[in-house]
Amino acid sequence: MRFAVGQLKGYCRNTMLAHGVDADCAETVADMLLDAELTGVATHGVSRLAIYMERVDKGLVSKHNDVRIVRESPSTLAIDAGNSLGAVGAKFAMEACIRKARETGCCFATVKNSNHFGAAAYYTRMAAREGMIGFCCTNLTAKIAPHGAAEPFMGTDPISVAVPSNGFPVVLDMTPSVVALGKLILAQKLGKDIPLGWALDRDGKPTTDPAAGRAGSLIPIGGPKGSGLALMVEILSGVLSGAGTATHLHDLYEFDAPQGVGHFLGAIDVGHFLDVGAFRAGVSAMTDEVKGLRPAEGVDEVLLPGERAARSAAEKAAVGIDVPDAVCAELAALGEPYGLKLKEC
Amino acid sequence: MRFAVGQLKGYCRNTMLAHGVDADCAETVADMLLDAELTGVATHGVSRLAIYMERVDKGLVSKHNDVRIVRESPSTLAIDAGNSLGAVGAKFAMEACIRKARETGCCFATVKNSNHFGAAAYYTRMAAREGMIGFCCTNLTAKIAPHGAAEPFMGTDPISVAVPSNGFPVVLDMTPSVVALGKLILAQKLGKDIPLGWALDRDGKPTTDPAAGRAGSLIPIGGPKGSGLALMVEILSGVLSGAGTATHLHDLYEFDAPQGVGHFLGAIDVGHFLDVGAFRAGVSAMTDEVKGLRPAEGVDEVLLPGERAARSAAEKAAVGIDVPDAVCAELAALGEPYGLKLKEC
Repeated sequence: MRFAVGQLKGYCRNTMLAHGVDADCAETVADMLLDAELTGVATHGVSRLAIYMERVDKGLVSKHNDVRIVRESPSTLAIDAGNSLGAVGAKFAMEACIRKARETGCCFATVKNSNHFGAAAYYTRMAAREGMIGFCCTNLTAKIAPHGAAEPFMGTDPISVAVPSNGFPVVLDMTPSVVALGKLILAQKLGKDIPLGWALDRDGKPTTDPAAGRAGSLIPIGGPKGSGLALMVEILSGVLSGAGTATHLHDLYEFDAPQGVGHFLGAIDVGHFLDVGAFRAGVSAMTDEVKGLRPAEGVDEVLLPGERAARSAAEKAAVGIDVPDAVCAELAALGEPYGLKLKEC
Repeated sequence: MRFAVGQLKGYCRNTMLAHGVDADCAETVADMLLDAELTGVATHGVSRLAIYMERVDKGLVSKHNDVRIVRESPSTLAIDAGNSLGAVGAKFAMEACIRKARETGCCFATVKNSNHFGAAAYYTRMAAREGMIGFCCTNLTAKIAPHGAAEPFMGTDPISVAVPSNGFPVVLDMTPSVVALGKLILAQKLGKDIPLGWALDRDGKPTTDPAAGRAGSLIPIGGPKGSGLALMVEILSGVLSGAGTATHLHDLYEFDAPQGVGHFLGAIDVGHFLDVGAFRAGVSAMTDEVKGLRPAEGVDEVLLPGERAARSAAEKAAVGIDVPDAVCAELAALGEPYGLKLKEC
């Protein structure tokens, strides 16, 4: 089924309201989910609403905006999200960072007692829209083995940086593992082997069996490099926030306890370093230069980080968002008890 | 030859003084070179003094501390290094960031018109010693091909993050390429092939020939991930600083012009988020947990980022620093015209 952006967003928001979620929280989460759909990250889009509502209904996530500032300095914030929906604490943190960075030049915030917040790029793009450089990372349950270890320790912790230009923002949003867990799940469904270098089995041996990899751990990019990056995310999101590191967190798809994840976000205001126009022009000159490089064999076009997302957003804003039938059925089931109808464009 | 730390540092400092370098600049550079030797990064240690002095003698690098603050906010600094020796501007920037972060919670600085600054971890460890989280990156001449491109654009731009704990600091210091250029140079010297996945030839094709790889480009870790990280370093160090991106810089080993590289450094003061003791204990609990993981097959011990460096520093501070004969000959030649003698322990 195909939906207009506002229509699908409205349905998500109304469904959350029907489940008792505060209006401001419902608006924030709906906006975040639709942003993921627009930018082509459907894995973090409306398909997540069902699990979010299941956790809310079970009392594992607060229906309210229970976010509060625990500690504040001119350029830092320590935030307790009070087990609010993940996007609520993270968006609050980035908005506060942007406001404070406007004054002092930069601001960084930690968030603890939080939940799955969707795609990290949603928050960094907020900063880029304000002429700032945005940073965001979060931790999640343990899936990646540290370099040299046979067991997982770090989550598939995303790292995002977004930068304004004269055109689309340059947006990096990456996990420090060679592949996301989703690629193993897909290979298993299709009965296919995975390449060596993606995962270790439960004994820490490289494996081509996706099921063995899922039971074991993911391999970080660049060995000690990706491993070190993921550990730094654990430190920033887990230790500096007080949330705890990956092995002490709870999974989105298990119902034993609140997730308890931590985030680390920040904004650097370009205008405190140089004229924002000059910066935007400099970034655009760089992207022009990169676009002008000879493509590698078998590559049609050199793409910048964030370029595919920008194209997807422009296209989907115009033609609408296609949602697979299985996801539509899930969405419809969420609203149906409350008399809400999911309607096609 | 083996040297006591103070002795080798003194020789480096006196050699720089003899070449006309300002006393404070000579002290900073000598300290940075010896820190690299101590932490086991000999590639960035005293073996670099000869090229630094050759550039100074040729007038390509200033003998003076010409660093000045161009723009300042409560939590940001834009610095012009005035073509001073690289360590001079970078150390000044990190010291200023630490001072300002103590007040506001964090501070980030750009540095332009700078030069090769040695190992990035030297600067981030300064912050960790003060109970802060240190960040540092720099750009260098173009060597890494963006994901999907057949030509180099980004430098082998190091990224360092350092974090205090109760024991050794956790220190990441990585380039976003699969291997450093030095590994290709070594393979070529030894007449050996390199594995596919390290480098592209001049046509952008994967190559096993180290000479072809040197003429071509290095491959980033994790495809678009390492590529995106390197582009972000170019933006922070090259565009935000005003220094320019990799393709517009000059090489340390070419004598056509000042290098003109840019740095980006910062410090986040842990004490503005939570009690520093609690943070250190949290990081140590994490490192204990990682050390306690089962090692992968063929691995004796799981090592944390910065652990090898800390062991090396403790050992070398006690027994001294071994310098290869070829490097000793270079060092001796630098001081000899001024009557300086390089003496063993």
